[in-house]
Amino acid sequence: MTTHTHGYAAHAAGSALAPFSFERRDPGAKDVAIDILFCGVCHSDLHTARGEWPGTMYPCVPGHEIVGKVTAVGSDVTKFAVGDIAGVGCMVGSCGHCASCDGGEEQYCETTGFVGTYNGPDPVMGGHTLGGYSDHIVVDEGFVLKVTHDEGDLAAVAPLLCAGITTYSPLRHWNVGPGQKVAIVGLGGLGHMGVKIAAAMGAEVHVISTSAGKRDDAIQLGAAGLIVSRDADQMAEHAGTFDFILNTVAAPHDLDALLTLLKRDGTMTLVGVPAEPHPSPSVGLLVFGRKAIAGSLIGGISETQEMLDFCKQHGLTADIEMIRMDEIETAYERMVKSDVRYRFVIDMATMTA
Amino acid sequence: MTTHTHGYAAHAAGSALAPFSFERRDPGAKDVAIDILFCGVCHSDLHTARGEWPGTMYPCVPGHEIVGKVTAVGSDVTKFAVGDIAGVGCMVGSCGHCASCDGGEEQYCETTGFVGTYNGPDPVMGGHTLGGYSDHIVVDEGFVLKVTHDEGDLAAVAPLLCAGITTYSPLRHWNVGPGQKVAIVGLGGLGHMGVKIAAAMGAEVHVISTSAGKRDDAIQLGAAGLIVSRDADQMAEHAGTFDFILNTVAAPHDLDALLTLLKRDGTMTLVGVPAEPHPSPSVGLLVFGRKAIAGSLIGGISETQEMLDFCKQHGLTADIEMIRMDEIETAYERMVKSDVRYRFVIDMATMTA
Repeated sequence: MTTHTHGYAAHAAGSALAPFSFERRDPGAKDVAIDILFCGVCHSDLHTARGEWPGTMYPCVPGHEIVGKVTAVGSDVTKFAVGDIAGVGCMVGSCGHCASCDGGEEQYCETTGFVGTYNGPDPVMGGHTLGGYSDHIVVDEGFVLKVTHDEGDLAAVAPLLCAGITTYSPLRHWNVGPGQKVAIVGLGGLGHMGVKIAAAMGAEVHVISTSAGKRDDAIQLGAAGLIVSRDADQMAEHAGTFDFILNTVAAPHDLDALLTLLKRDGTMTLVGVPAEPHPSPSVGLLVFGRKAIAGSLIGGISETQEMLDFCKQHGLTADIEMIRMDEIETAYERMVKSDVRYRFVIDMATMTA
Repeated sequence: MTTHTHGYAAHAAGSALAPFSFERRDPGAKDVAIDILFCGVCHSDLHTARGEWPGTMYPCVPGHEIVGKVTAVGSDVTKFAVGDIAGVGCMVGSCGHCASCDGGEEQYCETTGFVGTYNGPDPVMGGHTLGGYSDHIVVDEGFVLKVTHDEGDLAAVAPLLCAGITTYSPLRHWNVGPGQKVAIVGLGGLGHMGVKIAAAMGAEVHVISTSAGKRDDAIQLGAAGLIVSRDADQMAEHAGTFDFILNTVAAPHDLDALLTLLKRDGTMTLVGVPAEPHPSPSVGLLVFGRKAIAGSLIGGISETQEMLDFCKQHGLTADIEMIRMDEIETAYERMVKSDVRYRFVIDMATMTA
């Protein structure tokens, strides 16, 4: 009882992604079967497929920014019907009974950890989960999101499932809103969504970037301005003025220069995990100002739905560049060079059998 | 119009503290003049007197845990009368009009910074402020605290003015209370007050220490137990169970081992500033659990009063060892070896003219 599925997989750390066929389970009582229309391309996909992080299980089918059409539902499914547009993000399961799962924070599942949409343990089929670089997926309805954006926006909705929620969740958790001055560090896939969402929440948003060349983009995305992090005068001008900093940069960098931008009681939240540690932050900067450095990981399922609804309400989608499935390696090469504004999305209609 | 005052001063980085006479201003309209009864001995005193931190101005009269009797008040003073028992902590002034001063958080004064009780710029007499290792002090009433403890407790109240407020403020700010499990890292002058205060706030308190030998003390102070930080099994047993960690250790140490003890959304607040940076903390540990590392600096004046009242209400004072003024260098030597349970207090009646 399986469905033949076409995808793209890496077969080893050094090998390019290539066509790969495999079986998906047929929907169980609580499952939703989805024909994938679009899948965003996240930097995590690249790191995992290429084995740049420990623990990649091969064959690896990446992809966790999924939008598609429901083709079948199990007998106990109540929230979805055939023909609905649905989304799947970074998670397809969790233990369901720990304090974090109970609290709707499945991403922090304290027993098994959440089940990743790819490269997680597959509790039904065995082996490991295979992600959204494929034409079909079957997911427990508890991890499926409703997408209500217009049909023409669906490709640009896909990146909301990771880049959107990863920025929305900390902005919401740290109560970003009107009257606040908020910095978004780094203007990539995550950062560009951070700017849009923080601005829609009513904050005055500034992008902090190593590159002055992104100023026009930053303003077009909704920022009040761009501060060049390497320009000490610009940084000094904004010292002690930010309520909150969302730091999307995963490469090791100087956190102290950013901490000086915070007001008393301000928090800088990191959503990127560097491969090598950042230089150790100054405890004095934390103490003299009661400042904090925090971390945040994607967001819970109910919060992801809230984020999708918020984006629909405010007319927000990602800025994307559509690619064919067979262009994925070229896209990866461009991502390594930060040459993407701001997210590649695979048009799954280009998947060939 | 000055008052001849006897104190102990260091005259250079390498010189021992020795008798030193100087002039205090007579009280202005808003000043309170205090004959000092007791002064606690803080590690900052030692660092400053010995020039171990940059910026010591000599002669240096340390001391910022002061309890004494009011001998005169200025014409505009409303809160104190001659004969009252009063306290003075780490601050004797601030700008008075920035957002932090307006908010009762003078310790974070954003324009001039707060005026330290010693080694700060003296706005009235010129030069620099001279602290509580002396028999008399004159302070703006805005920076003088009411002490209502019994007379026999006054020596043990003195350390509350720094060690007490430095631990009370973060415990209060991060809402420590009943039903919570709280760790106090380091059982020294700050840590022992942290244990007493957190326990009085209703939390289940555990001391984290490199030394198993402090277990009995920890429990006597109000802790439920002591976790030996070098014992991986003990640490693993408590992984993911703490709501809040108050870290009083200034020496560089592994923050990651402590972060693993926090629950999701837990905060570890540092109140010690290491001379050399801690090893850089793991961003992954912050991200997978939405944890935070924060800093906190003493506390505001109104909060210091609240702390004194809280301690009076709960019968809390410091555990002290009383010394004569001329024993200060011996006390410093013992402090360097952590040989003090848990605070030295100078009996100012031993000051000789």
